[in-house]
Amino acid sequence: MHFYDFNSLQSLAKGECRPFVIDGQQVGLISQNVMEQLFRYPEVFCIKDAEQGKQNIVELNPAFRDYTERSEQVDRVLKEFRSQGLFVALKGWRNECYEVHGITGSLMKMERSATSLFGVRNFGVTINGYIKHPSKGLCIWLQQRADTKQTWPGKWDNMVSGGLSVGYGIHETAVKEAAEEASIPDGLLKNLVSAGCVSCFFESERGLFPNTEFVFDLELPEDFVPENSDGEVQDFELLSANECLERLYSPEFKTTSCPVVVDFMIRHGVITPENEKNFTQVVELLHVPLQSLYTYRSPPQTNGLTNSNGFKNGRI
Amino acid sequence: MHFYDFNSLQSLAKGECRPFVIDGQQVGLISQNVMEQLFRYPEVFCIKDAEQGKQNIVELNPAFRDYTERSEQVDRVLKEFRSQGLFVALKGWRNECYEVHGITGSLMKMERSATSLFGVRNFGVTINGYIKHPSKGLCIWLQQRADTKQTWPGKWDNMVSGGLSVGYGIHETAVKEAAEEASIPDGLLKNLVSAGCVSCFFESERGLFPNTEFVFDLELPEDFVPENSDGEVQDFELLSANECLERLYSPEFKTTSCPVVVDFMIRHGVITPENEKNFTQVVELLHVPLQSLYTYRSPPQTNGLTNSNGFKNGRI
Repeated sequence: MHFYDFNSLQSLAKGECRPFVIDGQQVGLISQNVMEQLFRYPEVFCIKDAEQGKQNIVELNPAFRDYTERSEQVDRVLKEFRSQGLFVALKGWRNECYEVHGITGSLMKMERSATSLFGVRNFGVTINGYIKHPSKGLCIWLQQRADTKQTWPGKWDNMVSGGLSVGYGIHETAVKEAAEEASIPDGLLKNLVSAGCVSCFFESERGLFPNTEFVFDLELPEDFVPENSDGEVQDFELLSANECLERLYSPEFKTTSCPVVVDFMIRHGVITPENEKNFTQVVELLHVPLQSLYTYRSPPQTNGLTNSNGFKNGRI
Repeated sequence: MHFYDFNSLQSLAKGECRPFVIDGQQVGLISQNVMEQLFRYPEVFCIKDAEQGKQNIVELNPAFRDYTERSEQVDRVLKEFRSQGLFVALKGWRNECYEVHGITGSLMKMERSATSLFGVRNFGVTINGYIKHPSKGLCIWLQQRADTKQTWPGKWDNMVSGGLSVGYGIHETAVKEAAEEASIPDGLLKNLVSAGCVSCFFESERGLFPNTEFVFDLELPEDFVPENSDGEVQDFELLSANECLERLYSPEFKTTSCPVVVDFMIRHGVITPENEKNFTQVVELLHVPLQSLYTYRSPPQTNGLTNSNGFKNGRI
């Protein structure tokens, strides 16, 4: 698992990866090894080489009429990839779909484990639960993921987090996950404060993970103890800021959740320019300009009907 | 004054601007119109065109022995530019020097008004002073700059801010400026919390302004009123979050100080993904990866002695 610095991110985007385009809008990034397999399905994926001034792209066949046809056609290919054992990512097949968004809303749905093959941007929410302890100072609640989870089983993670789903707003998702994952009562959730977002780009053998996490802070009373109600968490633990930093750098922590904890530590004066000599670089790495990697646009195809199933309020 | 989005920033950096290199280290970016004038001083500035695999750069003559010689040689050229009325930036000549830093410390000093011609990175500190008002909610202290200030006279600005000076640490600078600009007593400064940094890139007729601001939050008691003691501020005003947003978007606000206020509003839940549809883009723009624009390195010249006058602890 690599945590990209910005220069390698740029070369990644401009070099071997190509925009994945649906209905004229870039929704993903496709690496060479994935593209080699997509070549075998020219009726589904149109691989366009650069012509004067134009960029290499991989386009989903614009003849597909709508959300449903796109989803079915891609799903058929993915199932073949899976049965052929082609990609590690698909060994984690979940039978759970992720909505692939363009500017105009959701363009298709895709098996969640396959989104990393297409470099589809992922959006989630995280709640940093903390207390201001009279003697220990700032303390942070972490969860330990259930051993039965498909990704990162048994690893330590932020108190509450979850992916954005269609029909749910960002704040709404945070509230829903807080109830399901940590049984936080409505009364306490009134203190939930939106605190920004963290954008990172990871790569692993499972593919590309451009991830933006909407971040919330929640100060909790000292006597509150989170309790799981959906079976996805096996433990919660309250750590001092220093204990939390130590846990963070251990292999027991879910790598992709580290940036949100680091952002929290920076915003709350634990990690400072005085104690972290790469302070400005770290802050920049928590906010990689993913926006700049998903800029390809072409004139929309007139035969491509767009389903406008966006996140609530069409905010993404 | 332009507030760059990342794409124009990249083209700016990769297109017409060249790294400004001292002792093998990139310390700035030089635009075409400045380079045309530097051509006239080949004994001071070596303009190197790309050779196989190498980048176009503008290098300060590596024969200059040390900090003092570099500073004097550049100062001589700048004074000629000034007397010839060549650059708007130099009309604001301050007789105040800015330290030009490389990785190894300060490499030379340069008249402050000229740093934008060389695209030298600027580092500063800002303190967001705020109260949690029982009825008005989050309120923010702003200062109005004195009419006598050379830059942005009479404009509204963050409660406290200042440039980093040699020999002062970042936290130390914040404390010093808090006393000078707003007479904040030591007792209250114990609540100062480091809260990250904001990096932006501005361009105006005065040149290039790549700026990184180290940000501190300071919650103040309701009855405290800031008072200026160095003559650089003519007024302080406490505004509700909404009043502050309105002021921010008015021409009465110092443009280059807006990003830090916006960052504060994001971290404190005033600007949220629910009320700002470009939320993720705004967050990315507050953290442009300046680091990636100042990456040029060449083998150090053996005749270039380096003065290691860094900021305290050599942290920058």
